[in-house]
Amino acid sequence: MTDQAHMRRAIELAARGRGTTSPNPVVGCVVLDAAGQVVGEGFHVYAGGPHAEVVALRAAGERARGGTAYVTLEPCDHTGRTGPCALALLEAGIARVVVAVSDPNPAAAGGADRLTRHGVAVTTGVLAAEAERGNAEWLTSVRLGRPHVTWKYAATLDGRSAAADGTSQWITSPESRADVHRLRGEADAIIAGIGTVLADDPRLTVRRPPGDGAPADGPGPPAGRTGTDARPPGDGAPAPRPLLRVVVDSDARTPLTARVLDGPAPTLVAVAADADADALASRAEVVRLARRPYGIDLAGLLAELHRRQIVGVLLEGGPTLAGSFLKEGLIDRVVGYLAPALLGEGAAALGPAGAATIAETHRLEFEDVTPTGPDLRLTARPVPLKEL
Amino acid sequence: MTDQAHMRRAIELAARGRGTTSPNPVVGCVVLDAAGQVVGEGFHVYAGGPHAEVVALRAAGERARGGTAYVTLEPCDHTGRTGPCALALLEAGIARVVVAVSDPNPAAAGGADRLTRHGVAVTTGVLAAEAERGNAEWLTSVRLGRPHVTWKYAATLDGRSAAADGTSQWITSPESRADVHRLRGEADAIIAGIGTVLADDPRLTVRRPPGDGAPADGPGPPAGRTGTDARPPGDGAPAPRPLLRVVVDSDARTPLTARVLDGPAPTLVAVAADADADALASRAEVVRLARRPYGIDLAGLLAELHRRQIVGVLLEGGPTLAGSFLKEGLIDRVVGYLAPALLGEGAAALGPAGAATIAETHRLEFEDVTPTGPDLRLTARPVPLKEL
Ligand SMILES: NC(=O)c1ccc[n+]([C@@H]2O[C@H](COP(=O)([O-])OP(=O)(O)OC[C@H]3O[C@@H](n4cnc5c(N)ncnc54)[C@H](OP(=O)(O)O)[C@@H]3O)[C@@H](O)[C@H]2O)c1
Ligand SMILES: NC(=O)c1ccc[n+]([C@@H]2O[C@H](COP(=O)([O-])OP(=O)(O)OC[C@H]3O[C@@H](n4cnc5c(N)ncnc54)[C@H](OP(=O)(O)O)[C@@H]3O)[C@@H](O)[C@H]2O)c1
Repeated sequence: MTDQAHMRRAIELAARGRGTTSPNPVVGCVVLDAAGQVVGEGFHVYAGGPHAEVVALRAAGERARGGTAYVTLEPCDHTGRTGPCALALLEAGIARVVVAVSDPNPAAAGGADRLTRHGVAVTTGVLAAEAERGNAEWLTSVRLGRPHVTWKYAATLDGRSAAADGTSQWITSPESRADVHRLRGEADAIIAGIGTVLADDPRLTVRRPPGDGAPADGPGPPAGRTGTDARPPGDGAPAPRPLLRVVVDSDARTPLTARVLDGPAPTLVAVAADADADALASRAEVVRLARRPYGIDLAGLLAELHRRQIVGVLLEGGPTLAGSFLKEGLIDRVVGYLAPALLGEGAAALGPAGAATIAETHRLEFEDVTPTGPDLRLTARPVPLKEL
Repeated sequence: MTDQAHMRRAIELAARGRGTTSPNPVVGCVVLDAAGQVVGEGFHVYAGGPHAEVVALRAAGERARGGTAYVTLEPCDHTGRTGPCALALLEAGIARVVVAVSDPNPAAAGGADRLTRHGVAVTTGVLAAEAERGNAEWLTSVRLGRPHVTWKYAATLDGRSAAADGTSQWITSPESRADVHRLRGEADAIIAGIGTVLADDPRLTVRRPPGDGAPADGPGPPAGRTGTDARPPGDGAPAPRPLLRVVVDSDARTPLTARVLDGPAPTLVAVAADADADALASRAEVVRLARRPYGIDLAGLLAELHRRQIVGVLLEGGPTLAGSFLKEGLIDRVVGYLAPALLGEGAAALGPAGAATIAETHRLEFEDVTPTGPDLRLTARPVPLKEL
């Protein structure tokens, strides 16, 4: 097996941590013995829990001596809640470390250097693009100092999210709607506009998949982050942070009876600096942001969420708010659920986004196309700007 | 190998005839000897040319005796430009015939009966759905007495076919545009609305793919049907019929200088019964149809095309005309080229189609998803009505 094959496995392992490691990155590790046999595997499960390298080295034990470790992210060199992984690799006697992505976090970087200084052979950049995709949320957070934003929409083939009379339930299939709950489970916060709150009165929580009905203290799949029934996985890990619900609402128009204010999940209502939000403040946390011609300052909102260690955000619209995010270059990933259906009339999935002529089109590239029941889920990312 | 595997191969062979057999169906045939070895393959290339069974039997020769023939469509039992295939199979001594789809054409059907009467074992319905898809144009023509209509559109992820200022070149990639020319090459006629003719002044001909630059009499890929350079394939087959261009234009507003009136390809302008089309009649054939509240009678137009042995039609819009076709249940297949791009404003790909509320949504199902360069080509068909 080649370096690529082992790294691919490490990336698979890392992905198992999606939805529970935030604000930490997802990390996977595969350890081979000196003869090239796989003797340990591990991934990072939750912030504060053991790092992937430590899990894999524990499984390998003495067999790691003289062996190779594949890690999706450069091993850390700082002592946080756990000791530095670079040290653990040295102590285990690992002879070679293969890394996919260097750590862009100045506080944690330096692991590769320390390893090299102690005579360990270090190869960096193996399957880097693939590993970056798996860690897009965390890397965006560290590199740009704001959360990674996924815009999700559901539409017909002709790009309509509602019929002419306003009806919109259900354009997409139960399978697509279940997949949206998976996306929510992977996010730290969901953002919706006041237009959507007034029109649909959504709850914006995570529904657990059917079948995941184990008793609160029993075994079951990793809990993920849930709005209504966060629970410890039972292995001593802390309960995942509840999903933060965010309403973008310049004039504090969110009704006190809105479902988004219900339940145990926290809610943040982002209003304009001059809004009258006294009543709302009794039901939700209110954050004040600068007023802009078209609403409130969205970059300011993301900065506020970053301060709260929100790493991944799911933007659930509507079209007006999504248009503003896109116009300001604040969308990192688009996930569209496309129903095999045609309407010909009704509200468009996306509102004005500052592109009045073809040359100004927001260009993306497809990353994935997967059926969700009868629908298609399309995932795309903005084409990287030349100067980045 | 199973019946399915041989039939799949026969379906593949049949598909090679796409674009040249009209008004005949595409048909493929695989012949096995008595021991189950493949000894002959064939497909129907052009109307008037040898049928698939005859080609495959010729290749097999004496080895066909006691063997099996796989045919995508029930062998014909009538003497048209060629003799009945059922007879050819009997004369070759074939012991078993496996058929995908029964012939719905009363003039040609009866082949399976004749074979059975003469002691040949006949199995029908193997991979029927797959074979039906490959022959959708011809089967629609025979069953419904009108041409099969493929609506093609190009749009952004949010369903826009043009930007707010009207610019629309080029939303999709060169690869998608080349694929549209392939679709045109498979059609007998292209239909466009007067809105599109006035806005874009399209030529509506088939551009040959780059590299297909063989001299007119030289070798090269099958010619397909071309508007500007129809040519015989060089093997004695007749030149394919030129693609018919059709403009839907109630008031005969097509300018006499329009490119759609240029060149060697014939053009039909469909106008209302009371339109003043004298000038136009000198440049194109004019056909008169009943006036409806929203334009001319489209079912009447398709009936007229059916009389002219037009089997497959490519509807190239625009949105208004496509909406009318959809509303009247006259679209059999949708091919959408989706660019990984977002506009947020601009003309929608589809205009009003009689669906004002979600319950009236035109439901389809995806048949195929294929990348065309950076874009996605989505193919979908209306969900069959329960009562059909
Ligand atoms: N199919 C889907 O995927 C999907 C998803 C979500 C929603 N929807 C549909 O979308 C519709 C609602 O969408 P909508 O477009 O009316 O409302 P929206 O996008 O949910 O909210 C827009 C509102 O947010 C406020 N806002 C504050 N700051 C803003 C800024 N910087 N940029 C833009 N907006 C800002 C504005 O109102 P204020 O200034 O007054 O605060 C604005 O009118 C509903 O019908 C819903 O069903 C569909
Ligand atoms: N991206 C794409 O795939 C694509 C493809 C084609 C066009 N386009 C764009 O679409 C735009 C033009 O579209 P459009 O919607 O204005 O025009 P259109 O659909 O090409 O033509 C519509 C016109 O056809 C005539 N018509 C006659 N009988 C009709 C009937 N039964 N139903 C509907 N229409 C009938 C009507 O005018 P009269 O009654 O006066 O005859 C009607 O206004 C252009 O900007 C073009 O670039 C895009």
